Amino acid sequence: MTNPIEDRDGPRDECGVFGIYAPEREVARLAYFALFALQHRGQESAGIATAPRGGSIMALRDQGLVAQVFDENKLRSLPGDMAIGHVRYSTTGSSHWENTQPIVRSDRRALALAHNGNLINAVELQAELREQGVAFASTSDSEIIAALLATHPAERIEDAVADVLPRLKGAFSTVVMTDDAVVAFRDPHGLRPLALGVLDGEDEKPSYTVASESCAFDLIGARYLRDIQPGEVLTLTDGGFRTRLVAGSERHAFCVFEYIYFARPDSRMAGTVLQVARGKMGENLWHEAPVEADLVIPVPDSGNAAARGLARAANLPQDDGFIKNRYVARTFIQPGQELRKQGLRLKFNPLPEVVAGKRLIVVDDSIVRGNTTRQIVQMLRDAGAAEIHLRISAPPIKHPCHYGIDMSTREEMIAHGRTVEEVAAELAADSLHYLSLEGVYAAVGTTRESHCDACFTGEYPLAGTEEEASGKYALELPLLRV
Amino acid sequence: MTNPIEDRDGPRDECGVFGIYAPEREVARLAYFALFALQHRGQESAGIATAPRGGSIMALRDQGLVAQVFDENKLRSLPGDMAIGHVRYSTTGSSHWENTQPIVRSDRRALALAHNGNLINAVELQAELREQGVAFASTSDSEIIAALLATHPAERIEDAVADVLPRLKGAFSTVVMTDDAVVAFRDPHGLRPLALGVLDGEDEKPSYTVASESCAFDLIGARYLRDIQPGEVLTLTDGGFRTRLVAGSERHAFCVFEYIYFARPDSRMAGTVLQVARGKMGENLWHEAPVEADLVIPVPDSGNAAARGLARAANLPQDDGFIKNRYVARTFIQPGQELRKQGLRLKFNPLPEVVAGKRLIVVDDSIVRGNTTRQIVQMLRDAGAAEIHLRISAPPIKHPCHYGIDMSTREEMIAHGRTVEEVAAELAADSLHYLSLEGVYAAVGTTRESHCDACFTGEYPLAGTEEEASGKYALELPLLRV
Amino acid sequence: MTNPIEDRDGPRDECGVFGIYAPEREVARLAYFALFALQHRGQESAGIATAPRGGSIMALRDQGLVAQVFDENKLRSLPGDMAIGHVRYSTTGSSHWENTQPIVRSDRRALALAHNGNLINAVELQAELREQGVAFASTSDSEIIAALLATHPAERIEDAVADVLPRLKGAFSTVVMTDDAVVAFRDPHGLRPLALGVLDGEDEKPSYTVASESCAFDLIGARYLRDIQPGEVLTLTDGGFRTRLVAGSERHAFCVFEYIYFARPDSRMAGTVLQVARGKMGENLWHEAPVEADLVIPVPDSGNAAARGLARAANLPQDDGFIKNRYVARTFIQPGQELRKQGLRLKFNPLPEVVAGKRLIVVDDSIVRGNTTRQIVQMLRDAGAAEIHLRISAPPIKHPCHYGIDMSTREEMIAHGRTVEEVAAELAADSLHYLSLEGVYAAVGTTRESHCDACFTGEYPLAGTEEEASGKYALELPLLRV
Amino acid sequence: MTNPIEDRDGPRDECGVFGIYAPEREVARLAYFALFALQHRGQESAGIATAPRGGSIMALRDQGLVAQVFDENKLRSLPGDMAIGHVRYSTTGSSHWENTQPIVRSDRRALALAHNGNLINAVELQAELREQGVAFASTSDSEIIAALLATHPAERIEDAVADVLPRLKGAFSTVVMTDDAVVAFRDPHGLRPLALGVLDGEDEKPSYTVASESCAFDLIGARYLRDIQPGEVLTLTDGGFRTRLVAGSERHAFCVFEYIYFARPDSRMAGTVLQVARGKMGENLWHEAPVEADLVIPVPDSGNAAARGLARAANLPQDDGFIKNRYVARTFIQPGQELRKQGLRLKFNPLPEVVAGKRLIVVDDSIVRGNTTRQIVQMLRDAGAAEIHLRISAPPIKHPCHYGIDMSTREEMIAHGRTVEEVAAELAADSLHYLSLEGVYAAVGTTRESHCDACFTGEYPLAGTEEEASGKYALELPLLRV
Repeated sequence: MTNPIEDRDGPRDECGVFGIYAPEREVARLAYFALFALQHRGQESAGIATAPRGGSIMALRDQGLVAQVFDENKLRSLPGDMAIGHVRYSTTGSSHWENTQPIVRSDRRALALAHNGNLINAVELQAELREQGVAFASTSDSEIIAALLATHPAERIEDAVADVLPRLKGAFSTVVMTDDAVVAFRDPHGLRPLALGVLDGEDEKPSYTVASESCAFDLIGARYLRDIQPGEVLTLTDGGFRTRLVAGSERHAFCVFEYIYFARPDSRMAGTVLQVARGKMGENLWHEAPVEADLVIPVPDSGNAAARGLARAANLPQDDGFIKNRYVARTFIQPGQELRKQGLRLKFNPLPEVVAGKRLIVVDDSIVRGNTTRQIVQMLRDAGAAEIHLRISAPPIKHPCHYGIDMSTREEMIAHGRTVEEVAAELAADSLHYLSLEGVYAAVGTTRESHCDACFTGEYPLAGTEEEASGKYALELPLLRV
Repeated sequence: MTNPIEDRDGPRDECGVFGIYAPEREVARLAYFALFALQHRGQESAGIATAPRGGSIMALRDQGLVAQVFDENKLRSLPGDMAIGHVRYSTTGSSHWENTQPIVRSDRRALALAHNGNLINAVELQAELREQGVAFASTSDSEIIAALLATHPAERIEDAVADVLPRLKGAFSTVVMTDDAVVAFRDPHGLRPLALGVLDGEDEKPSYTVASESCAFDLIGARYLRDIQPGEVLTLTDGGFRTRLVAGSERHAFCVFEYIYFARPDSRMAGTVLQVARGKMGENLWHEAPVEADLVIPVPDSGNAAARGLARAANLPQDDGFIKNRYVARTFIQPGQELRKQGLRLKFNPLPEVVAGKRLIVVDDSIVRGNTTRQIVQMLRDAGAAEIHLRISAPPIKHPCHYGIDMSTREEMIAHGRTVEEVAAELAADSLHYLSLEGVYAAVGTTRESHCDACFTGEYPLAGTEEEASGKYALELPLLRV
Repeated sequence: MTNPIEDRDGPRDECGVFGIYAPEREVARLAYFALFALQHRGQESAGIATAPRGGSIMALRDQGLVAQVFDENKLRSLPGDMAIGHVRYSTTGSSHWENTQPIVRSDRRALALAHNGNLINAVELQAELREQGVAFASTSDSEIIAALLATHPAERIEDAVADVLPRLKGAFSTVVMTDDAVVAFRDPHGLRPLALGVLDGEDEKPSYTVASESCAFDLIGARYLRDIQPGEVLTLTDGGFRTRLVAGSERHAFCVFEYIYFARPDSRMAGTVLQVARGKMGENLWHEAPVEADLVIPVPDSGNAAARGLARAANLPQDDGFIKNRYVARTFIQPGQELRKQGLRLKFNPLPEVVAGKRLIVVDDSIVRGNTTRQIVQMLRDAGAAEIHLRISAPPIKHPCHYGIDMSTREEMIAHGRTVEEVAAELAADSLHYLSLEGVYAAVGTTRESHCDACFTGEYPLAGTEEEASGKYALELPLLRV
Repeated sequence: MTNPIEDRDGPRDECGVFGIYAPEREVARLAYFALFALQHRGQESAGIATAPRGGSIMALRDQGLVAQVFDENKLRSLPGDMAIGHVRYSTTGSSHWENTQPIVRSDRRALALAHNGNLINAVELQAELREQGVAFASTSDSEIIAALLATHPAERIEDAVADVLPRLKGAFSTVVMTDDAVVAFRDPHGLRPLALGVLDGEDEKPSYTVASESCAFDLIGARYLRDIQPGEVLTLTDGGFRTRLVAGSERHAFCVFEYIYFARPDSRMAGTVLQVARGKMGENLWHEAPVEADLVIPVPDSGNAAARGLARAANLPQDDGFIKNRYVARTFIQPGQELRKQGLRLKFNPLPEVVAGKRLIVVDDSIVRGNTTRQIVQMLRDAGAAEIHLRISAPPIKHPCHYGIDMSTREEMIAHGRTVEEVAAELAADSLHYLSLEGVYAAVGTTRESHCDACFTGEYPLAGTEEEASGKYALELPLLRV
């Protein structure tokens, strides 16, 4: 571990996408604000592509936050009837300009593409394309999808998508735009989210829009309709949309971690808003493991919603036990020898006046390596807490993600090879309870069958991605995750 | 009103200062982290000056956040036994490089100076100095103080401060460093905060430090001791400090708004941590105006602490009614015709699933012009709230600040010339209660006599600054506020 | 006149273009170095687009010099078998990002386009396209050409060019690239330059390339073959090129000022290298107006080559009478009251030791407003020159350019309404001789019939662009020049 | 060798300094323009410090060119009666912000200092100061001089200089400013240049100014008076200057390479303007080694002046055989495999039409490693030159510089261990003549006794710096050269 404040001790999410077909509206501006709402899904780069019907695709993308990449002049240089957009998270080393999105290609047809997820068979697909003489400008697996679609002989883009989709293995929630359509499609397992919304016109026809999360709809005045189905190819058209299911028979495997942590609390997924679902996770936490306590405090902000629910269920008072510094930056000075012990304090400052002498229930969403949690417990002890009862609104994380989320290795995970009691001892907590998988699914009102919870269970839903085989993805796919 | 998301509908605070005398410690690094903790007091520029005893003052300052201005190389080029630092808030137009701090001057003596506050007699003092041939590099009133001290004939800097302090009219919490001392001083009214802390050594002598708020001490492992007294001149020395009161007889007038909004909730002032004091303001709000309700929600983050307290006092459930977008930027695209009605939604997204059908108590810290509050009420209505009861943890703001805080003009203040009922009607709230001044002071555990609450009462504590006379400061002091 | 050193007292040239079809070579790298050689034609922005055969067009363009816009990573993200490039000069106000080139459009076909020149019928063409629903991302007339070609129904790009070319009025030396061809074409009058070169392979087939000037060929190891003909459409193909003349009957009108000043002295045009042609202009200057003198000095660098020739013809010694500051920047501090009289000295420092007491022949390429020349004469007088005989290697400039060059208005031209003697008096020169038009053409070895010399003669070669009508272009075409 | 165009095959000069005492003038503006004239001596960083009499020193310095570092606002924030300035050349690795100048220190006295040269006893001096507790912000030997002066107990700065100067070993042309004086001083050997100029007022008293080269005076309207003497301490005062010689008995050793290459041709040194001196070097070259030839061409720009002189002496025609690209940038793309053979062509493009079939005399100022010259000869051969006679206006460089100039190691020098005939063969030239040392001194009108020509002769004029001992400077003084 290096810089304690950069050491986000939790999994990292990957990318947000957006698409809209809305002649007579300012589609670039709508994309801008939608991406702003999706900013939490990627702070590394942002991009927008627009096209008039029958016209030219224009795209602008760069490294930085949405508000840094675009200004009024640049938005004005993006005219059109439809738009797609992208925000990208990136691990160090692959943060090159050429990996920003939307990707624009013009092989047989011109198109722009924005992708969230990662392909398992990227290497094979790229090799195939290279043999056919297809050149690549980037190292992202997203460009492979773009190349497959841009070189495809089908007349209509949605036919190209329908043909290509079954050849893609892995996770992909993708939006592609040509000069006459915006097509959204999702892998047959539905690993990453993708939602459909509608923007009602006054005297106008409705306009349809897709986004990684429904919070993007709220900001642009659209309404959430439903999630795009796994294996669905949905084409936005004038005043409506066409849809077909091209790969419907696969086992669904939506990432359960979106409910727990990734998505914004104001997003709707599986028919529920996550603030409410996470609140219920907190309630369930209480019911599974009640404890005598004086005060409930969240780890801000990841534990906020569950702490609300737990406190309500327990009828216990709640307060802020830490104040979070909102200015934590990407590049940061090392604390140096003297301040090393301050560690996490750069991010969270505990409030002795609030916690001293209290029996605390401390609520967070998950524990990966445990470094952050260990420091939190220590800071609360130093601040005079009488007892510290950890309540985590997810089961123990014991297995790496093979579908695009950058978690630690199994060996680094604190719950790997330890009982809950051993983890509690390791963290120096008076008690520790992880929410059961049942508790998670019940809070959301859904079931395991259609979800991926491999990071908790080790049961990988996609064929050929069981844990023993996992090494190869890391080896073969350097820099290919977007 | 222009861009709704930039329109912070509340008063704006001004600058944070820091000082430390700690031979054998990395003083530049300590200053860096202390400023990082004070970042909420100023995001426009940051600077650090250091000096070895008997050595050369070195300074580095620039526009930007602390983490943007400094890197490891730059910190290493700031050696020394003592340091001061500054973060600055700035209104548009005066955000030039030359107004960054600490200011370094070398007239008769070399010194560096960091200042929070503003002088009322800046114009007169500067004219006097110019007549004596003193040149100025900036337009800030802080440089006037620096010039008075740097040109002063007294041998010791603290004697120069003691002589100059009575000539300064207005608000100033100031730290000045020469090659042998760090001196902190505060105006006789004590308008702006300044605290004293101690950094215990293991085998070493203690090191003393001063900062605008005690949260800076927490980050660098120091302990809060007490506030610097109004009119006190405190000199940090080797293993201790010297103090004298040079202007003790004035009426004290600490800004009550620091308790309510400006300072971080984890800072200690007047013997209390503000999260607790603000929680009690929420409790008092409930006791002053109880109402039948289903749920308490804060306006994040300004209403968080008071909402905690009110909910505890009322034994009512609490939840997040809005999700706040953490990526709101300084420069931002106009929403355009279509999205104009979205307004504040760029910053706050309401949660219908949480608030629909509920009788809400909505808690915030203050209302200035009312634009934000009006939109909040409207958004909650649109989200299905059954009743909206506004509870504000401060009295109605009716009078401008003459001591350095950039509030609106009296005419723009919604409470100016309106009864509380009229304001409630104007905001379309079902009920509205402002916390009484007594309620504020009781929560903090202090009294009016030693504070300034002119923005609520119109009773300006400094001679010659009553409201009728106020126009002249704005006219005569362009760009002079820091 | 504002800043004397920014006041280039001569006409300004506009843009450089490049194209190459060279499978198996690093085309992006070749384009980079070619643009570097053409940098003198535009310092405002630079861009490169590449495409593999049958593949996707990739483009990268930005404001700045070639060496500032590109780095190794960016070049590597531009794979392909062919490339085009552009450097752009821009007047203040239109230097937006969206006006950089190559322009990429993907209406019916995807293409990238780089253009030097300006259209006279831009407004009409754009209006027509807009009626058909074509959207534009920029304000440049270059995008109009791109849109006409990208929306054209012809199967092959060269057929689209052949059809569109006759509809374009004005000056255009253009390179367009699709996924299977690079096509270069030039307006029927051949106003702006465009040359063809070949890059011999060792065992490979030759690769062909086009550029505004042949100096670009030298840098990448290519050989100059010939100029593209006015009205010619030349398609670069695998190991060769196809050509057709689509508008051959028009009067040719190549800009004679390219010979005199715009092009680099090492470029070949009309079968001659310009250093030699300009040297002959100097010789002719001497023969037309010999004078007793001691020393020949150039105005650096514009008068260098002609001064060489004049000195050789006269068998007179030559020396540097001025040293030129090579660091003159775009943004520059005003000299202030005291230094105003220093004026041009920021750019040129005279050498009294060289010129004092001497009868000088001072050689420059042209005089537009005369401000620079007047100061040069004065500086030489102050430095002690005994006599100053101005010799200008172009006729008097009396008429504005209607084809894309930003000269002054007629009223500002010093030769407008003055005899040569009056101009000499105005400039305080002992004598002044302008090279005759015959002298210019003889030096190049060509004739008036195929050239435009309207700035000297007022005889505008394109129909409908005679001087009386000129006002309308300025009025109707704001920001449309590239 | 890496990037051929960055590979300046010649010695590199180091830093330019400026000082002025001119109450009632805009001293910051004068410094700005003077530094602009000295820009050729350092493009890495620029800085200006100003002070009013009895007032505060203000300084602004940053990496970049003069025109990039300063703007109007920044100049306006530098008021005062006197100013000093600095431009800095830097080798890779030490180009940190903290090594920019002027250095400001405020130990016992506040001062700003600008230095050209390098100290031989920097390590010893710094160790001594550190023992006394003096801290350093940078790694430059310039800060050591600043610290010695700032900590010195003498009342007047010039007395401090007089005391410190004899303790400094090495090369230093230095300007130091306090709040009441600008003092210029030069090492007793006078290794690096420093000139005195005067700015006449109209009704005012004259103002005096110092600069590395007199070309700075020309730009600000000042007149060159004389060079500062080796060992002289010159204090600029109101309407005059005071001077004393504190170390006059040493052997003078002015760097002869300033005449040959470093200084601008319009600068005056040793009573002559260098354009004329270099012209005479060219004349002497002809007289020492006449040859039958058709044309004289310079290597631009370093050979320009000598080529002028040689052609005049030989009465041979002269022309440009190469066109130089003026846009060569610091960071530059590698040419890649294919273009590697193009090499130097990125910088110089030969003109076959000028040189083909001709017997050429090619003139340059010096040869260090010979890589550039070898390529130049090859390019001319390829362009068809019949014969190539190299004429170099300096003797063979065979020994490294120990006084601050970054030449190659002895082993890399082409003339090391080779006769002139062997060098000619190595370069593939038909003949080669180096100007004799006598020829150099005669051209300048001075003698060896007062100069350093160790790079040619190996006779190092300073005690203890003979060649055998040279290794230690490189080892002991990492990053200490400015």
